[in-house]
Amino acid sequence: MHLAALHSPSQIQLNQDGHLKHFLTIEGLSKETLTKILDTANSFFNDQNQLITTPLLEGRTVMNLFFENSTRTRTTFEAAAKRLSANVLNIDIARSSTSKGETLRDTLWNLEAMAADIFVVRHSSSGAAHFIAQTVCPNVAIINAGDGRHAHPTQAMLDMLTIRRETKKNFEDISIAIIGDIKHSRVARSDVAALQTLGCKDIRVVAPNTLLPYGFEEYGEGVRLFNDMEAGIKDCDVIITLRIQNERIDSPALASQAEFYKMYGLNKERLAMAKLDCIVMHPGPMNRGVEIDSSIADGPQNVILRQVTNGIAVRMAVLALAMQGQLQEKGLIEAIAV
Amino acid sequence: MHLAALHSPSQIQLNQDGHLKHFLTIEGLSKETLTKILDTANSFFNDQNQLITTPLLEGRTVMNLFFENSTRTRTTFEAAAKRLSANVLNIDIARSSTSKGETLRDTLWNLEAMAADIFVVRHSSSGAAHFIAQTVCPNVAIINAGDGRHAHPTQAMLDMLTIRRETKKNFEDISIAIIGDIKHSRVARSDVAALQTLGCKDIRVVAPNTLLPYGFEEYGEGVRLFNDMEAGIKDCDVIITLRIQNERIDSPALASQAEFYKMYGLNKERLAMAKLDCIVMHPGPMNRGVEIDSSIADGPQNVILRQVTNGIAVRMAVLALAMQGQLQEKGLIEAIAV
Amino acid sequence: MHLAALHSPSQIQLNQDGHLKHFLTIEGLSKETLTKILDTANSFFNDQNQLITTPLLEGRTVMNLFFENSTRTRTTFEAAAKRLSANVLNIDIARSSTSKGETLRDTLWNLEAMAADIFVVRHSSSGAAHFIAQTVCPNVAIINAGDGRHAHPTQAMLDMLTIRRETKKNFEDISIAIIGDIKHSRVARSDVAALQTLGCKDIRVVAPNTLLPYGFEEYGEGVRLFNDMEAGIKDCDVIITLRIQNERIDSPALASQAEFYKMYGLNKERLAMAKLDCIVMHPGPMNRGVEIDSSIADGPQNVILRQVTNGIAVRMAVLALAMQGQLQEKGLIEAIAV
Repeated sequence: MHLAALHSPSQIQLNQDGHLKHFLTIEGLSKETLTKILDTANSFFNDQNQLITTPLLEGRTVMNLFFENSTRTRTTFEAAAKRLSANVLNIDIARSSTSKGETLRDTLWNLEAMAADIFVVRHSSSGAAHFIAQTVCPNVAIINAGDGRHAHPTQAMLDMLTIRRETKKNFEDISIAIIGDIKHSRVARSDVAALQTLGCKDIRVVAPNTLLPYGFEEYGEGVRLFNDMEAGIKDCDVIITLRIQNERIDSPALASQAEFYKMYGLNKERLAMAKLDCIVMHPGPMNRGVEIDSSIADGPQNVILRQVTNGIAVRMAVLALAMQGQLQEKGLIEAIAV
Repeated sequence: MHLAALHSPSQIQLNQDGHLKHFLTIEGLSKETLTKILDTANSFFNDQNQLITTPLLEGRTVMNLFFENSTRTRTTFEAAAKRLSANVLNIDIARSSTSKGETLRDTLWNLEAMAADIFVVRHSSSGAAHFIAQTVCPNVAIINAGDGRHAHPTQAMLDMLTIRRETKKNFEDISIAIIGDIKHSRVARSDVAALQTLGCKDIRVVAPNTLLPYGFEEYGEGVRLFNDMEAGIKDCDVIITLRIQNERIDSPALASQAEFYKMYGLNKERLAMAKLDCIVMHPGPMNRGVEIDSSIADGPQNVILRQVTNGIAVRMAVLALAMQGQLQEKGLIEAIAV
Repeated sequence: MHLAALHSPSQIQLNQDGHLKHFLTIEGLSKETLTKILDTANSFFNDQNQLITTPLLEGRTVMNLFFENSTRTRTTFEAAAKRLSANVLNIDIARSSTSKGETLRDTLWNLEAMAADIFVVRHSSSGAAHFIAQTVCPNVAIINAGDGRHAHPTQAMLDMLTIRRETKKNFEDISIAIIGDIKHSRVARSDVAALQTLGCKDIRVVAPNTLLPYGFEEYGEGVRLFNDMEAGIKDCDVIITLRIQNERIDSPALASQAEFYKMYGLNKERLAMAKLDCIVMHPGPMNRGVEIDSSIADGPQNVILRQVTNGIAVRMAVLALAMQGQLQEKGLIEAIAV
């Protein structure tokens, strides 16, 4: 892959009318597009706040291509696609593609020729989904389910949906703290991009310097760095605690779980620094007692499990919207009407 | 798990109106409840005695959580759920729950938050399904698909359905022999409990002392122990032969397959001691030539494969009933109407 | 298995009215039956040449029994069955059947008793599907998804559909070359049988002697052998290049990939010997640069990916037709009406 030769994702994930036809990354999408995703996701809840099932993707075939194993994310996409009445095929892509000496390109073309409408792609390399969308299968709707450390855009959108539904405030008016292992998180970068696009003016990244990525200063407008937990949290409307990955613990970057908890673990005393109605989010899976205390994880301000439910709604939304964007580009439908 | 602190399953598996909302164990369920399950299962056969497909669980999500592998039982639940038009997700629960250091409780809450309506749980520990129903996910309908040596309640109910459909006699009027490895069987205890509840007055447990569990004398009313095969079978209406588990053979409890067959194997001579219209059942998989002779396994009195078909109907019934019991408890439907 | 005692497949794969009730092999099927399959497959494309979804198998249960792993073929059958609205269960048959000492026969009977309507069978032994259809589960529609080196009949039918749709010529009027590893290919024998039945009069088998099977001269009418690539291709309407299996390379039969490519690789110079509108087919997965040059694999005459799409349509057709043939035999429907 010569990633240098790729067009920017923002160019290729939209059709000629400016609607999503792939969903690869938050970067480059407009506020209108993100809002359309959130509105569509919202429409999948009924009056009792429960997820509906709809025939939007009836007769469509969604293939899950998980080059990297992630049982949980795959399950959420499978649940979302089935709620849209799609046929779902979990492809054992690692085994399919390489065991018989076929090129990956040929494997993907074969899967497309099995009448696939949507590929949900998880890959450990940054840009894999982008590469497939641009150069291999542009006529299949490609949904990025996480690539390398780069992007996890459906996680970002479920975080945005949760903030909107749970705070009932405008993105312009809220203060958000993202705490922890920014460096190794697929989530942090996508969250910051989404928040900026949606107009958030006070985004605080709270971490020790060893857990900040190089070039962090380029995150841009509205983002401030805090090494001090209390200052970072102060008067926030939303706190997003990130998972400390086990394999990072006891590395030079992070001396011990106990030390991290002492410096950055979210507990009652610290949460009290935030606004009274501050919500607490976490992308899961949680390390209780490391980045978050159980009293908070199970406490009244946590919205962690609602994030999971919102994740189904958001995945339904991007599946449905990208499918419609493809059909519109091919002239098979005139307008997006989710 | 502090199992001592759990309420009895009979308390937690019924909703406020006395209808099933989980299906954990036969013990404590009333004759009316068991009969409702059998009637509902019966309603899933059409006039040609073939299983129907119905939209009863359309839009509902069933997750199979098999902590212990059992391809066959999982397949029967998957087939049953799909006949009810549910979305079915097979969760690789062993991999999901532990690999990232998350607690099992958090894993289950996450799955529930993916808008699961029903968990089908198979676990090697007695009481696992009960524990989940009481303390982790009381708002998800929990179906016990076998736990430890304790309970295998859907197997018991498919046995009851088979007895009712094949003998066309009342449970009060029949004599039943259960033969073989009572000690290690999930089936025997559940079968005895169901038979007692349904009014059966002559239940004979036939086994060498080494294959009887401790405390067997507590099985209670209507149950008699036989070491002698011929006496145990005499004039029976129903014979249930149990599987000898391979790993037990050649243990001190069971000197050899040949010896067991000689003492307790069901063959023509022995079957002739039972009533002429006695039916022969086996939970599968069979060891032909050990607990049952092939002439019987394939003979006119065997109903072994009809048990399998009845197993789909019974699983459809408990899935549908527990779902309705949950909805009723939440005030979303008024009455159970399968 | 005493294969000698089996009836011929042509006898057992048809019902009393001469309609398919299993699909085991091309041999013995009439031109009318093959044409019916092709017509039915064609009917599953809409006006935009896209595969439709239909309720033909709604409420039916299709079980995939892959004794031998083949992710790709399994995926195509799963996609086909879901487009027919069937319930699909992928059975881990290797694990189910043997781990508990049960006989294969008992395992299959159990699966049938779970209300299976169709088994899709892939097995490394020639005749396995035939054996199951004749002696184990005659009332389940058995579809052969490839057995040993013997038959791969759905691949043959998708090749026939591709020839019909892409050349728009009659089978009587075309010349076809099948090139490469005839000896180890499941495809070649089935393709030749289908072409003969459909009336093709000029079938050329092009290979070195080391890659021809024993008894090749018995292929019969219309088939000629060529060791010389150019002579074999000359004036052809259709070229089918076969996969060289990696494990054969560097065996005595095939000194090296480079040598094979030099003698039999399809490149521009050689393709120019064929008719101008000659189409190029390959069953996949391809070894680019061994049996086929990339300029041909991606060139304007290749129809390789359309074969894959046609494969879904053909599998839909045999699933639907065999199901109807079973229902007709049981008196449940009067006429085949796909």
